[in-house]
Amino acid sequence: MSVYEFAKGLIIEAGNNVKKIMKEDINIETKSNPNDLVTNVDKATEAYIVENVNKTYPNHSIIGEEGHGHDITNVEGITWVVDPIDGTLNFVHQQENFAISIGIFQDGQPYAGFVYDVMNDVLYHAKRGEGAFENEQPLPQIEATQLHRSIIGINPNWLTKPKLGEMFKPIVESARSSRAYGSAALEIVAVATGKLAAYMTPRLQPWDFAGGVIILNEVNGKASNLKGGDLSIYQANSVVIANPSLHEELMQQHFSKHQSTINLLHERLNN
Amino acid sequence: MSVYEFAKGLIIEAGNNVKKIMKEDINIETKSNPNDLVTNVDKATEAYIVENVNKTYPNHSIIGEEGHGHDITNVEGITWVVDPIDGTLNFVHQQENFAISIGIFQDGQPYAGFVYDVMNDVLYHAKRGEGAFENEQPLPQIEATQLHRSIIGINPNWLTKPKLGEMFKPIVESARSSRAYGSAALEIVAVATGKLAAYMTPRLQPWDFAGGVIILNEVNGKASNLKGGDLSIYQANSVVIANPSLHEELMQQHFSKHQSTINLLHERLNN
Repeated sequence: MSVYEFAKGLIIEAGNNVKKIMKEDINIETKSNPNDLVTNVDKATEAYIVENVNKTYPNHSIIGEEGHGHDITNVEGITWVVDPIDGTLNFVHQQENFAISIGIFQDGQPYAGFVYDVMNDVLYHAKRGEGAFENEQPLPQIEATQLHRSIIGINPNWLTKPKLGEMFKPIVESARSSRAYGSAALEIVAVATGKLAAYMTPRLQPWDFAGGVIILNEVNGKASNLKGGDLSIYQANSVVIANPSLHEELMQQHFSKHQSTINLLHERLNN
Repeated sequence: MSVYEFAKGLIIEAGNNVKKIMKEDINIETKSNPNDLVTNVDKATEAYIVENVNKTYPNHSIIGEEGHGHDITNVEGITWVVDPIDGTLNFVHQQENFAISIGIFQDGQPYAGFVYDVMNDVLYHAKRGEGAFENEQPLPQIEATQLHRSIIGINPNWLTKPKLGEMFKPIVESARSSRAYGSAALEIVAVATGKLAAYMTPRLQPWDFAGGVIILNEVNGKASNLKGGDLSIYQANSVVIANPSLHEELMQQHFSKHQSTINLLHERLNN
């Protein structure tokens, strides 16, 4: 069995476990930030994935939201980047609209990406160079759009910040409309399936985007930080994701005019 | 058959027709505002509902988004308030996340509400005094929440407006998180099912909220305009919808401080 097939089975099993635990009580632990809830389900799901990867592939490295491998910086070999529950607030408040996300990298290069929309039982997946799939349905290449004819994904919260608000406000005003779903992984696959034309946010951790971006790449989507640079799986990033022509429009007409804001943002990202 | 049972069958049939038409080509007509797309599906769906209501209940009045009964102000008898496709942009760009909405009023009082999430095949419905249902599952009464522990529904676009932005910004900052789904009817039923704790917007037409609010009332949700007054089905309204304690918090801590902004908004609403 290839690592790809193994991961596909594992993420679905992990999702089935989540559904099973959801029928029991959900214990919620509050981290320092009230927006950063963590449940026993996050921990149990990450532990389940880590345990199974370790057992089958003892040489693979794992970076996970709930604490695994945060000191890893060595790109050699195979690295799994795992978000056990992306969209934790949705999980806690809605019991849906969350995903398990896994990105697998070989010597620092994308190998395969998985985003499992657990409650809808939809697995988005891609192996580099072999196209992307929604369950067993191949996803078409995404279409070029212009901002004024695009629905974009952006959280209202960013518009309340003084400098970031100044940067994002003209984008929201120029877009046809905006949406906020509360799960970065699902928002990235929404771009990959053409349901959103773009998704942007000033701060994402690698586990939030690793799986989704590998899927996105296979349908000709473009992902970068707000400076246009590559996304790193070893640190937090600013993120803009779109079809290539909209990505270029956003970079040239908007983000390039806010270099000092973005520089300041990047200085603070990993502190 | 009661009007309630008749409407329940009719809205599902209308949804089946929408799915049938979606398999053919969707012709898109652009209204004056590019954000206000209208499709032949909107028109065909409203016509289908109007035709069937007229045939069975020739004495009933109908107010519909696509042009029916906009001059009606007489509350006597039975009035249907119909949105054939709520979330037209989602319909056009996503082919999902839209709803058919019907509110039925008897002598100006709520009689029954229906919101049909077509692509997920979920019908939210309520007859006044008899509780609300998600398909055949009764919905529980919604729980009280405080803003800082609430996920609220609000479109990012409102935060880009000078006066409205000033009013909404502290609400978004105080909330646990914000979402924007792009269909008022689905956002109102998200409050009724407890998936959002509140939904607010400066401008909604009666057909956007009529069905959803009748459902919401049955689970103890509160709906008003931003001044705290009743929503009218004969004109555009500002809208805030929440569980009663959060509604009170929003009115007292936020909207009451912006009376002049809200007065100005209301003056412009129906022009």
